Amino acid sequence: MKILLLNPNMTQAMTDNMAAIARAAVGETVEIVPVTATKGFPYIASRAEAQIAGGLVLEMIAEHGTDVDAVVIAAFGDPGLVGARELFDVPVVGMAEAAVMTAALLGESFAVVTFSPLMRRWYAECVSATGLKDRFKGVYTPNDTPAKLGNIQTDVRDDLISLATTAATQHHADVIILGGAPLAGMVPDIAAHVPAILVDPITAAVLQAMTLAQMRPRSATPNRANKPAAKTSKGLAAPLAKAIQHEGFTG
Amino acid sequence: MKILLLNPNMTQAMTDNMAAIARAAVGETVEIVPVTATKGFPYIASRAEAQIAGGLVLEMIAEHGTDVDAVVIAAFGDPGLVGARELFDVPVVGMAEAAVMTAALLGESFAVVTFSPLMRRWYAECVSATGLKDRFKGVYTPNDTPAKLGNIQTDVRDDLISLATTAATQHHADVIILGGAPLAGMVPDIAAHVPAILVDPITAAVLQAMTLAQMRPRSATPNRANKPAAKTSKGLAAPLAKAIQHEGFTG
Amino acid sequence: MKILLLNPNMTQAMTDNMAAIARAAVGETVEIVPVTATKGFPYIASRAEAQIAGGLVLEMIAEHGTDVDAVVIAAFGDPGLVGARELFDVPVVGMAEAAVMTAALLGESFAVVTFSPLMRRWYAECVSATGLKDRFKGVYTPNDTPAKLGNIQTDVRDDLISLATTAATQHHADVIILGGAPLAGMVPDIAAHVPAILVDPITAAVLQAMTLAQMRPRSATPNRANKPAAKTSKGLAAPLAKAIQHEGFTG
Amino acid sequence: MKILLLNPNMTQAMTDNMAAIARAAVGETVEIVPVTATKGFPYIASRAEAQIAGGLVLEMIAEHGTDVDAVVIAAFGDPGLVGARELFDVPVVGMAEAAVMTAALLGESFAVVTFSPLMRRWYAECVSATGLKDRFKGVYTPNDTPAKLGNIQTDVRDDLISLATTAATQHHADVIILGGAPLAGMVPDIAAHVPAILVDPITAAVLQAMTLAQMRPRSATPNRANKPAAKTSKGLAAPLAKAIQHEGFTG
Amino acid sequence: MKILLLNPNMTQAMTDNMAAIARAAVGETVEIVPVTATKGFPYIASRAEAQIAGGLVLEMIAEHGTDVDAVVIAAFGDPGLVGARELFDVPVVGMAEAAVMTAALLGESFAVVTFSPLMRRWYAECVSATGLKDRFKGVYTPNDTPAKLGNIQTDVRDDLISLATTAATQHHADVIILGGAPLAGMVPDIAAHVPAILVDPITAAVLQAMTLAQMRPRSATPNRANKPAAKTSKGLAAPLAKAIQHEGFTG
Amino acid sequence: MKILLLNPNMTQAMTDNMAAIARAAVGETVEIVPVTATKGFPYIASRAEAQIAGGLVLEMIAEHGTDVDAVVIAAFGDPGLVGARELFDVPVVGMAEAAVMTAALLGESFAVVTFSPLMRRWYAECVSATGLKDRFKGVYTPNDTPAKLGNIQTDVRDDLISLATTAATQHHADVIILGGAPLAGMVPDIAAHVPAILVDPITAAVLQAMTLAQMRPRSATPNRANKPAAKTSKGLAAPLAKAIQHEGFTG
Repeated sequence: MKILLLNPNMTQAMTDNMAAIARAAVGETVEIVPVTATKGFPYIASRAEAQIAGGLVLEMIAEHGTDVDAVVIAAFGDPGLVGARELFDVPVVGMAEAAVMTAALLGESFAVVTFSPLMRRWYAECVSATGLKDRFKGVYTPNDTPAKLGNIQTDVRDDLISLATTAATQHHADVIILGGAPLAGMVPDIAAHVPAILVDPITAAVLQAMTLAQMRPRSATPNRANKPAAKTSKGLAAPLAKAIQHEGFTG
Repeated sequence: MKILLLNPNMTQAMTDNMAAIARAAVGETVEIVPVTATKGFPYIASRAEAQIAGGLVLEMIAEHGTDVDAVVIAAFGDPGLVGARELFDVPVVGMAEAAVMTAALLGESFAVVTFSPLMRRWYAECVSATGLKDRFKGVYTPNDTPAKLGNIQTDVRDDLISLATTAATQHHADVIILGGAPLAGMVPDIAAHVPAILVDPITAAVLQAMTLAQMRPRSATPNRANKPAAKTSKGLAAPLAKAIQHEGFTG
Repeated sequence: MKILLLNPNMTQAMTDNMAAIARAAVGETVEIVPVTATKGFPYIASRAEAQIAGGLVLEMIAEHGTDVDAVVIAAFGDPGLVGARELFDVPVVGMAEAAVMTAALLGESFAVVTFSPLMRRWYAECVSATGLKDRFKGVYTPNDTPAKLGNIQTDVRDDLISLATTAATQHHADVIILGGAPLAGMVPDIAAHVPAILVDPITAAVLQAMTLAQMRPRSATPNRANKPAAKTSKGLAAPLAKAIQHEGFTG
Repeated sequence: MKILLLNPNMTQAMTDNMAAIARAAVGETVEIVPVTATKGFPYIASRAEAQIAGGLVLEMIAEHGTDVDAVVIAAFGDPGLVGARELFDVPVVGMAEAAVMTAALLGESFAVVTFSPLMRRWYAECVSATGLKDRFKGVYTPNDTPAKLGNIQTDVRDDLISLATTAATQHHADVIILGGAPLAGMVPDIAAHVPAILVDPITAAVLQAMTLAQMRPRSATPNRANKPAAKTSKGLAAPLAKAIQHEGFTG
Repeated sequence: MKILLLNPNMTQAMTDNMAAIARAAVGETVEIVPVTATKGFPYIASRAEAQIAGGLVLEMIAEHGTDVDAVVIAAFGDPGLVGARELFDVPVVGMAEAAVMTAALLGESFAVVTFSPLMRRWYAECVSATGLKDRFKGVYTPNDTPAKLGNIQTDVRDDLISLATTAATQHHADVIILGGAPLAGMVPDIAAHVPAILVDPITAAVLQAMTLAQMRPRSATPNRANKPAAKTSKGLAAPLAKAIQHEGFTG
Repeated sequence: MKILLLNPNMTQAMTDNMAAIARAAVGETVEIVPVTATKGFPYIASRAEAQIAGGLVLEMIAEHGTDVDAVVIAAFGDPGLVGARELFDVPVVGMAEAAVMTAALLGESFAVVTFSPLMRRWYAECVSATGLKDRFKGVYTPNDTPAKLGNIQTDVRDDLISLATTAATQHHADVIILGGAPLAGMVPDIAAHVPAILVDPITAAVLQAMTLAQMRPRSATPNRANKPAAKTSKGLAAPLAKAIQHEGFTG
């Protein structure tokens, strides 16, 4: 099985870290194919940027998704997810949605803990977009954005434990999602210090991608009613234009 | 006052028709500046296409929106609206959202009537996205898609009257939105035959754009908290890259 | 075009101030016809009072609305709006609903800032009644009610700027509605100091009234399905009784 | 114990019928004090009429409610309920809300069955206003309004049984509210023919009024925080003006 | 009339106290039949415990409910309510649901005040389960759990008055439910000190049980569509097995 | 890895079929441990039965779950799920919830197709309980219950294809859950005939159980804040009593 791990941000180090975590999660029988965006932004942090990056995600799937069994969009806001799931036959998983659905299977209620107040609004909107707002207990962050991301996992470790504890004990979150790529991989280190179940989004995303690939191989639904009709276009990257025209691409 | 009437579809005839209706609505003191997409699709009809077209909308505003007082995104699904409103200081109006908010000021409840069952899902999702789902009575269409759009206003006239009447009398819609660019301009012709208030979306959109431009000139909020921070990018159309980098563009 | 500006409170000075703001907003081609309630209360501040004032609003429209193109109910709780919109053919705009729908066209989320904690509950209920609760970020007020309203705009100016800033930066409100007649006209003065888009409700209401009057002249729907059947009554003001009996009044 | 049974419609025969049903329900220890509106409408059937009738309800409570232990507003749309409950210290029960809350204690879900399609919208809105929309399975009526109300209970008996059966078996309503004053008293006759629990609204209303009067005598809350401040007024019926001014009336 | 007062907790003193309050509420014509669980837990305080206790509630009704007119499940979380109402023909009232529906008839909004933060989550979930979440203003408790329950009514009296006052004045709760069996009977003592209407859940529950028994005697619906089909079982208490098999038991 | 496949129904053949499907799904590295209820009902079909069966589920986990890595409750209504997840440290998956969350990762919207109208209500309530009501397009079934279950997969095959097609094309369900144990294993046979993605609930449940077991081993959260305090009990099965008392059992 091959899973395309698609980072819509242009930051290679972020891709490398997520690919390592993904490989540790899926074991040896699954191949992780990491791809980093070559256009767009170093780190998507607004809805305007997500609008653009979502289009790039479609391009990247069209180009790299031909022979994979599932795709992970490895950015918490799930840019392009809805359109990708509609257009392509291959299962496509968003990191936020995968984390949320997994959290909902682990407990009645969940919260997101992250490292910067700047992400509060967007993350809250991402969770609401999944439809599970009634089981969501909010986004918890330090009051200030850390000055640098270099040692972020060390710098905010105590804060995260404290925030997650508050979310669990005061706001009744059974499960805590550690949101944001810079926190990827921290769960094993802090799990014993938090009185709630912790979810690492990239791990959740690749495991869900495996599940979906097994349950619904891309060949399983040759005639989806919700697939857009073939359409001509102008000015799009060639593989994407072909996919939209139902040509050549069987993704 | 200048209003940019931005058609994210590549069909010039559609732009011309909407521009004519817009000019009739705004009177002589307002200049309508129509622009048609030069990339993308003849007619956006899926969420994947809307994802891409939404990025093109941002490009078009960055290129053409420098000295206008408001922008109308003239496609019912409002592609790019949320990102555009976040990124640019100029008021940006989506055709669906403008029609819905106007309908909600004209009656307690509203419905959408259009010409093809293919649009039901997307239009319903657009209305739900505005937040006014509880006042929405559904999308009503003929059972079959008309074979050609050439004489669509004549061909479906009786159907539309009948559907709107059903929506008003059986489903309690006080207001009917005639959705979809091909129906633009039909309201005066059929209003007397429908027992409900009718809304023409393009008219609603340009009148709302005038209202917003007057209430909130682009210079009014120099320091919006919700404006994304300046950011570098790669591979974007130059004017959009500048806007995202807070350079040169004051839109 | 003539717009009836109907103040359901008995305070003439409030009417005068709102009429001045309205005239500045609509320009010279529109005539503002202000009317002040001659029965009822100095200032409506409860739901019991709104129940009674709503009946007076219907009386006032029946008496003064015969030859106007739109009606504005100039009190934030929109007393009588639903019944008026049902009974009369002329477009009727409530100040709260107009402010809310306009705010929703200017940003994804909005809040209300006002001068007294006494208004929190009622204003919150008014906004919820519009259906846009999911985009609403709450009512923000000083902790205490100002001792006098005489210099209210000067006295609470700093508080309002601070509250609006908090609503924008901490609670993610893109747009701030300055609620309550005593604050009418303050937007230009404080806009540059608030990191969000500001909405003046009376301005929003008259501009929306213009839009509705143009889109839906009262003659446009001779046979609305939602119009109540003609009915006899007893003890009502004569013009209202006539309107309810479909006699003489074409409003 | 005395219960004011207040009919906001001007039809005395309707009051007499409801008073008889009420007396049968409450037994001999409770006095039913029926009052019929002397102003307003023969039968309220629109929101404009309910706006006016709601004001009359406040007048009637102020005049007749001085020494009763609870008040029943005996019209399905509960005109004036919210304001009355805020203004007066005596418990006030609306017929629709009482029927709905009682139905919710008898089963997980409920529906309304009534005799005319004209009531569908208003009744549905009344139920939604109680907040219990998620447990509500809709309003069911014959397709046509009966030509006359004279023998309505006989004429629609078979229809009601059939509609209630459909609501129970097809739409999963555990409880059926027989809505509308003309159907008052029919429950014992048809209960054995309907596969669901039936609720007679006037019976529910007076029994709930007894319960509230016992649980919360009007003297129990001398200082309600939600009571409007005393206020002067002009042009109101004298007892209501006094109540609003906190004078003389202790209701 | 006989009402079965069923305590699913094994604590006899709690039953005795609730039975005394119930008898004072219903007067001499109604017989209160108290039964205390002989299996299960001293005091249910989790959802796992409620799952088990809910099964015991069904057993207890099957054993003791044969000739009563209504059943009250006297524990705030209403364990077993939904299943009991489905299985048995006798009206079954849950203490939380009865308190909530009664509160909703006394005011627009309500809150719960109780003695321990440990109950916050469960009580909030119970209220949400009734469907009235939009009228609910939260659960208010002291920050710490009292060390002992012996003199709980004396020990937390001042706290409860203070919390209820905050709920009423800051959070706009018109009605306060004093939740939790240990607080049963406190309403008369503190009512004059709280600026809101108070509800005692056990009183609400028995009065509602009387109302339901009168409105819907168990013989009234011989053929409920929502009654489960007769079914064999294994290992259940004999009376419950019979009820499920529609044998012998007419409850 | 070991997964306890717990059938709360007493029908062994059902367990055998589900275990076979589960084994095919998980591969050779995971051991499926099937257990069939020895008390309760042949097939749970009501909420009263689910109340009782939910308690049995807790007993069965306490007895058989000591050394497994995850538990699947293999009945569509997820009896006992909430309590089990609260009480035990081992991940517990409900078949309905797992199917729903998986469906939500495969498409924007989903529906349930099953073989009998008798299941409509319960299945709809199960889906709503997950919180994903807004993405749910309903339960579709034949009008009549099949006379016998013997050849059910053959007998209703055409009906299921037709219903699923309607749900996809008319009601816009992207994903169809084939609900109910008697349909387990049908997906591969009919997938090519349905224009939507199909989900087999038992497959979804065991794959999700694998994912949860990997993400959150039972030792990961030694001090969950939402774990009920240790408590004595009376009359419970010994292993369950021990688990509730935090004795001996580390599940």
